[in-house]
Amino acid sequence: MSSQVLKGIAASDGVAIAKAYLLVDPDLSFSKETISDVDAEIARLSAAMEASKQELNLIKEKATENLGAEEAEVFEAHITILSDPELIGAIDKKIQDEKINAEQALKDITDQYIAMFEAMTDNTYMQERAGDIRDVTKRVMAHLLGVELPSPALIDHEVVVVAHDLTPSDTAQLDKKYVKGFITDIGGRTSHSAIMSRTLEIPAVVGSEEATTAIKPDQLVIVDGLDGQGIVDPTEAEVATYQAKQAQFLTQKAEWEKLKTEPSVTKDGIAHTIAANIGTPDDLQGVLDNGGEGVGLFRSEFLYMNSADWPTEDEQYEAYKKVVQGMAGKPVVVRTMDIGGDKNLPYLQLPDEMNPFMGYRAIRISLDKTDIFRTQLRALLRASNFGELWIMFPMIATINEFRSAKKIYEEERQAMVDAGQPVGEIKVGMMLEIPAAAVLADQFAKEVDFMSIGTNDLIGYSMAADRTNERVSYLYQPYNPSILRLIKYVIDSCHKEGKFAAMCGEMAGDQIAVPLLVGMGLDEFSMSATSMLKTRSLFKQLDSKEMAKLADKAINAKTNEEVIQLVKAAVPSEA
Amino acid sequence: MSSQVLKGIAASDGVAIAKAYLLVDPDLSFSKETISDVDAEIARLSAAMEASKQELNLIKEKATENLGAEEAEVFEAHITILSDPELIGAIDKKIQDEKINAEQALKDITDQYIAMFEAMTDNTYMQERAGDIRDVTKRVMAHLLGVELPSPALIDHEVVVVAHDLTPSDTAQLDKKYVKGFITDIGGRTSHSAIMSRTLEIPAVVGSEEATTAIKPDQLVIVDGLDGQGIVDPTEAEVATYQAKQAQFLTQKAEWEKLKTEPSVTKDGIAHTIAANIGTPDDLQGVLDNGGEGVGLFRSEFLYMNSADWPTEDEQYEAYKKVVQGMAGKPVVVRTMDIGGDKNLPYLQLPDEMNPFMGYRAIRISLDKTDIFRTQLRALLRASNFGELWIMFPMIATINEFRSAKKIYEEERQAMVDAGQPVGEIKVGMMLEIPAAAVLADQFAKEVDFMSIGTNDLIGYSMAADRTNERVSYLYQPYNPSILRLIKYVIDSCHKEGKFAAMCGEMAGDQIAVPLLVGMGLDEFSMSATSMLKTRSLFKQLDSKEMAKLADKAINAKTNEEVIQLVKAAVPSEA
Repeated sequence: MSSQVLKGIAASDGVAIAKAYLLVDPDLSFSKETISDVDAEIARLSAAMEASKQELNLIKEKATENLGAEEAEVFEAHITILSDPELIGAIDKKIQDEKINAEQALKDITDQYIAMFEAMTDNTYMQERAGDIRDVTKRVMAHLLGVELPSPALIDHEVVVVAHDLTPSDTAQLDKKYVKGFITDIGGRTSHSAIMSRTLEIPAVVGSEEATTAIKPDQLVIVDGLDGQGIVDPTEAEVATYQAKQAQFLTQKAEWEKLKTEPSVTKDGIAHTIAANIGTPDDLQGVLDNGGEGVGLFRSEFLYMNSADWPTEDEQYEAYKKVVQGMAGKPVVVRTMDIGGDKNLPYLQLPDEMNPFMGYRAIRISLDKTDIFRTQLRALLRASNFGELWIMFPMIATINEFRSAKKIYEEERQAMVDAGQPVGEIKVGMMLEIPAAAVLADQFAKEVDFMSIGTNDLIGYSMAADRTNERVSYLYQPYNPSILRLIKYVIDSCHKEGKFAAMCGEMAGDQIAVPLLVGMGLDEFSMSATSMLKTRSLFKQLDSKEMAKLADKAINAKTNEEVIQLVKAAVPSEA
Repeated sequence: MSSQVLKGIAASDGVAIAKAYLLVDPDLSFSKETISDVDAEIARLSAAMEASKQELNLIKEKATENLGAEEAEVFEAHITILSDPELIGAIDKKIQDEKINAEQALKDITDQYIAMFEAMTDNTYMQERAGDIRDVTKRVMAHLLGVELPSPALIDHEVVVVAHDLTPSDTAQLDKKYVKGFITDIGGRTSHSAIMSRTLEIPAVVGSEEATTAIKPDQLVIVDGLDGQGIVDPTEAEVATYQAKQAQFLTQKAEWEKLKTEPSVTKDGIAHTIAANIGTPDDLQGVLDNGGEGVGLFRSEFLYMNSADWPTEDEQYEAYKKVVQGMAGKPVVVRTMDIGGDKNLPYLQLPDEMNPFMGYRAIRISLDKTDIFRTQLRALLRASNFGELWIMFPMIATINEFRSAKKIYEEERQAMVDAGQPVGEIKVGMMLEIPAAAVLADQFAKEVDFMSIGTNDLIGYSMAADRTNERVSYLYQPYNPSILRLIKYVIDSCHKEGKFAAMCGEMAGDQIAVPLLVGMGLDEFSMSATSMLKTRSLFKQLDSKEMAKLADKAINAKTNEEVIQLVKAAVPSEA
């Protein structure tokens, strides 16, 4: 039998060779049956629940050990559900009253609970409980049916994880020591699976379409995260080839390591800053380890999301201060609260929206709930005394929004100055991620200290396509000449006014996009910490004047595909 | 006591003076109570259900008479629910078992049904049933509590309808003979309430914020749809003033009537086409009555939405033919299926999407389900023999999408030609409503026969704001220089390639936008039929060269507000 090659999207660099672990739900279908021995059926249910509880205790223990107490909490919630006398009583009664099999009774009762909890759309807590009940029901059902549910927290040997898609709760359970690679059916370069695998530096291929159907448990799998391929049941020769490729990649990575303290300059000596996008102060070490010249995007959401209520000024101040101090004078761009869209907060009580990406979020909330905004600004002003801190407002669509936000900032700054409190020199800029703002960049450039282009959202809005929606993800086209024109106009507009032009979207570390952005003269490239050295290495191969000509050709092309061809022809060493 | 003035948004021209009819739900709150006489409580519930049934029979009869059998069907569904022995039995049992009042038992049981039906998210039919149960429960609850529920279908005298917002189901029940004006709490110029009131030519003010709290039933109300004001409990002098304003408006309207057969030319003699947006062949009469020079947008969705399954080629052919013949040689632009977004079809089984506006819709569906697309194209090709038919593809984001759609069209055309069937000369163009397409308009202009700018969506995507979401509707800024720049670039790009540039969004009939669009040289203005004569009248006051200068100033302004000031200063007679 020969090997099978699965084509997908290269989502995280590197090569992995290991046995497959299928993170796939087994078939849990069953038929409704009439039973005669009620007591036996109730005993069967009780045994399945007991087995589930034991399993969950084991998983919880393992998860606490490897991932920490917080990650393990969800399993405690599951165990609690399995001990709820009301729920168990209702299922037992259903078996008794209707003489139906335990599977059907379990499904009927839990469906009722789930529907009730989910109907409470203004109560995030209850909605989460619905998810817990769904998870627990799956486990009990598996025991009733005698099939095995995957328990990723229990993996104890090296594997390639094969999944339809990876959810945040899946990845939270994975022990990074044993997971050597990922391969998924769906997803693109900016999906959660892809971003997470890059952060963890685990080779990954996403969007293979058929990984979960083509790969059997324990089959040997090669994940080629460099060229976006999976090889199932490889021949010995293939294993040897990919071991060589893996070795070559590791050698190259070691070469990149050497660039850690080098400047970020092109072949013709033009310098561009390479900075990192971070989510929490814990990410700082990765930035320093990979030679970051700044933090181009510090997402402040973690403060709001890991909290039961609005974070206090002091809590925020400590977090900002830690990062600013850690970067020791290198600039740190903090984005003010970007809640809303797909990021909700239980205590904010956001209304349900038909199109949350085009709804009440980010600066729109800050300008509405100014108390919360002022608290954040005061924390930032205080932290500015410990290094180089810049403030960036997200989702600015109109000049009036920027002016309103800046005015509130100026008021808080003045109040501190009046009170004799010290404040540092702060640059105040905007995240450029809304098409209308890009089109009016010349006017915005007169008002801001800097701009940072957020390409993920800019591409999504410009194409009117939600990149998290598989059916339209083909429209996520970073190299489409329309997108390149908007980016170039933003950079040119900044430079005309002597302002700093940065990018903190996925594109800034993309090897096809980087030559074009160098050609456009982008000042700062901010990306995942793990992409920085590779990008610095690429810079050394690029001549600025040639890249400027390439960028001009690209914005006059017609399609995304034409641009990819243009770049590949001009920068052959990229591959 | 003096009168009270409510400020709002002028949504539909004209002045109305009549007594208020509050289309507002009464307070239906109650407390849970323990009862002792179970039989009496069940009898109370039964009486409330009987009273509701009688009321619904009356409403149904009235609705059939005034609105037609189809609109009345919903009430038949409500009556059926009230006759469902399972539902009634469950409520009775709850009263009996738990000794609780009928209100609580009614709520508990119907909530359960609603949650269950709503949880069936892939079943539109069941979801609609959930809405029906909610409506019926409200009516029975009102009878239990002895309060009155509004029954708009029973209005039998002239009124101003006061509502928080108007839903399609509300307006379907209104007898246009008696409704003289509308005033609502929420909504903007492009909300359903506003568009519907313009179509019905009923004066309306939307977004007054406090209409339903400030106005009491039967209070005299003046609706000033020209200046966006409501006057509650007006003085005699105010009534006289607004009667005069009403008379003046009617005189002006009569003046506009005279323009019905006049050409659409500016003061300096430049002609621009004025066309209409229509939804069904029934709208044709309004186009002819108001002197339309074409149909700039024939939305083909009604064929798909008023149907239990995909409409056949013949059904579609008949509808297109009727409109094309009716327009007697004047151009009719048919937009191919624009389903998805907020328009779902039960038989299409669209998946739930997090952001449907940025999802699987319009041409994205047509290029995926090509059989359905080919059926529509064949119907259009056949209808093209009866007049001047143009085809327009909606939601085109990339050149490749346009090319794919055009290729399918060419294949169907060629197949007909090969089979010896006659086909007319058809122009094939695109709806320009996605920012990326606007930015690349120069390239698109080389490929299309014409473009028509859909401003509602173009503004929404460019601003990243869902205009149906009240919290961000302030970002629907048609005069923002960013939007004007995109529009101008599209028009200029078309003209550079000798192509026809039209607009079929709300903006084409907007009195602030029209001077700017004349200045940009837009070829066709397509709008609600009722706005056409007013726009033709406005053209006569505008000098093209002056308007070109005005447009240049506008695209170099910074904000929406600045542009409004510029236009008002340059076209003072507009008010």
